[in-house]
Amino acid sequence: MSNQAPHPALLIPGPIEFDDAVLQSMSHYSESHVSAPFVNTFGETLTMLRKLFQTSDPASQPFVISGSGTLGWDQVAANLAEPGDDVLVLHTGYFADSFADCFETYRVKATQLKAPIGDRPQLAEIEKALKEKDYKLITVTHTDTSTGVLSELKDLSELVHRVSPDTLLIVDGVCSVGCEEIRFDDWKIDCVITASQKAIGCPAGLSIVMASGRAIERFQARKTPPTSYFGSWKNWLPIMKNYEAKKPSYFATPAPQLIHALHTSLTQILSRPLEERFRIHREASQKVKKAVTDLGLKQLASKPENQANGMTAIYLPEGLSPPEILPTLLKKGVVFAGGLHKEIAGKYIRFGHMGVSVTDPARGDIDRALEYLKEGLAEVKKV
Amino acid sequence: MSNQAPHPALLIPGPIEFDDAVLQSMSHYSESHVSAPFVNTFGETLTMLRKLFQTSDPASQPFVISGSGTLGWDQVAANLAEPGDDVLVLHTGYFADSFADCFETYRVKATQLKAPIGDRPQLAEIEKALKEKDYKLITVTHTDTSTGVLSELKDLSELVHRVSPDTLLIVDGVCSVGCEEIRFDDWKIDCVITASQKAIGCPAGLSIVMASGRAIERFQARKTPPTSYFGSWKNWLPIMKNYEAKKPSYFATPAPQLIHALHTSLTQILSRPLEERFRIHREASQKVKKAVTDLGLKQLASKPENQANGMTAIYLPEGLSPPEILPTLLKKGVVFAGGLHKEIAGKYIRFGHMGVSVTDPARGDIDRALEYLKEGLAEVKKV
Repeated sequence: MSNQAPHPALLIPGPIEFDDAVLQSMSHYSESHVSAPFVNTFGETLTMLRKLFQTSDPASQPFVISGSGTLGWDQVAANLAEPGDDVLVLHTGYFADSFADCFETYRVKATQLKAPIGDRPQLAEIEKALKEKDYKLITVTHTDTSTGVLSELKDLSELVHRVSPDTLLIVDGVCSVGCEEIRFDDWKIDCVITASQKAIGCPAGLSIVMASGRAIERFQARKTPPTSYFGSWKNWLPIMKNYEAKKPSYFATPAPQLIHALHTSLTQILSRPLEERFRIHREASQKVKKAVTDLGLKQLASKPENQANGMTAIYLPEGLSPPEILPTLLKKGVVFAGGLHKEIAGKYIRFGHMGVSVTDPARGDIDRALEYLKEGLAEVKKV
Repeated sequence: MSNQAPHPALLIPGPIEFDDAVLQSMSHYSESHVSAPFVNTFGETLTMLRKLFQTSDPASQPFVISGSGTLGWDQVAANLAEPGDDVLVLHTGYFADSFADCFETYRVKATQLKAPIGDRPQLAEIEKALKEKDYKLITVTHTDTSTGVLSELKDLSELVHRVSPDTLLIVDGVCSVGCEEIRFDDWKIDCVITASQKAIGCPAGLSIVMASGRAIERFQARKTPPTSYFGSWKNWLPIMKNYEAKKPSYFATPAPQLIHALHTSLTQILSRPLEERFRIHREASQKVKKAVTDLGLKQLASKPENQANGMTAIYLPEGLSPPEILPTLLKKGVVFAGGLHKEIAGKYIRFGHMGVSVTDPARGDIDRALEYLKEGLAEVKKV
């Protein structure tokens, strides 16, 4: 059914399983990064990203740069904040700590608003925090890959625009873009950063960003120059505009093979209604979460409204650690991830259910994974 | 002969033509970035880089990070210099201006020592400059991709170590690593930055760096924290050490498919003596340069000792511009690049001769390109 060599199903919260056509695009013959065919492919890719983010505002600006999701943080910290600025970081797991670290590197003062593990900061707390200081921007991790906690964007945006209208709303969508609904224009988001290897379904190696017209204006009105070179929008903005206008342009060499793979995955994603894609991910997630509950296991994200649709972070039974169960599951043919949240890493595993593993039912990845999990737990307990 | 779809031979100074097996590795099925097989592949890749750079000093440290060659500049500026430091940038073309720009972004004071177009700064001038200020580091572009000018590393290193022994020697080897000899240990180089898509023969998307033990010590003795997050060695050093020790580790998600392709290309390169590889590149370069001279054309790099072995920058006949000749060559089946040096961009073209196009004579890429160039010039002149 697949041209790929036999391998265990990769069901971690990214990288995910890739479609054959996407992997085939990775082998595209070599092209000049300024040749007409490649410029066309890159330009179309940028335009398709607008559709994925549901933005029709021509002032919105997509960026695709060689790197990883992490480079998106650098782009935000170095382009949308200036040294000395205050920013508010909503904390739902490991990735908020790291994003705050990134801000501090660029001499931006990050204040974290934390929630207990498995929960997210509440709107009332956020409102209180926003009123305490003049925050240049607020960041929220849409799905925190370390905990599987989902944040709510629509109500958050309404709150931010009501209470602190000059504060830019920045979304870390590394583990959500492509599997969770994001209405960039309707929800008045200023910037979403993401990566290629999760629900977008393209191999790792690309930092993907969508910035609003307001964010670009804020960037252009900086009093100080951007504080990164490779991540500087001063360097990349004209390049991205040129590529989308199908004009060759050079700042740093892009990765043609990865761009081809992204073009293929976006073409596949946009060939069907996005609403359907999000529904399929929600249904798969419900199935996983019900099965996990039926096995007597708890999730880190304790409330249904906090639970991501692209992954599930599962507490192991008391006394069982990831190194005891993951090799058993690997032997059966499925790869899950261990815990990542420092305080409880040894107590839970993470199951990613994004992309072709959920949209292509013929693969049977999710059903097999749930079966293996059940069998594996039974075997390990017996030992 | 090749599995790749028919396409014009890409003979620009990077990206270059890729071997079938390397492109095949780009389609590797998805793997976890912390799985044992991938950790093993990444670890072996780092160890192979030591051989490519001819370093056996265990204190030398390779880095492979998703990005482009440009990210190497950020790594140098953000890790090996501190805000306020003075650095000396030897200028042989476009890329020195950009490297200096990168330093300024990180608040490092860059002094450029320029040479006339097609030449390189002379040792006596460099000695004088080094004596004028306390430079924390000196940078040299081994091959400047905009001009095809080659810099000499061995004598430069001896000079720097004699005149200013505390100054780190940094080599921009983006267009030289894999086709020009670099004896990292013997020549006491402190840092070489490069990229995957040129003479290393792996698709674009990886920033590759080799740092000396002395550079790492300098980094570790910083008074201020690194000024980049994504490019911070504080974040990446433990990760690279762990991967090479075959231990899983996470800071930001690497690009498994690109690492597989790099593993394949390095395995191919190291399967034969490096000395032979450099000789083959020198011979191909001589052949190109002789043919260009026979056509009555001049090179930007005017002296034989200044001429790179991986590319040739060729002045067009008076009155002919790149847009007039490049489409003719493309139609015949070869892609050359236009000029890049701002002052004379409209007057020259660039011919890259690196990797499989020169090491695999069965391809006939170089001979065909020279033939097309001769025919193309004749046709265009007739018009």
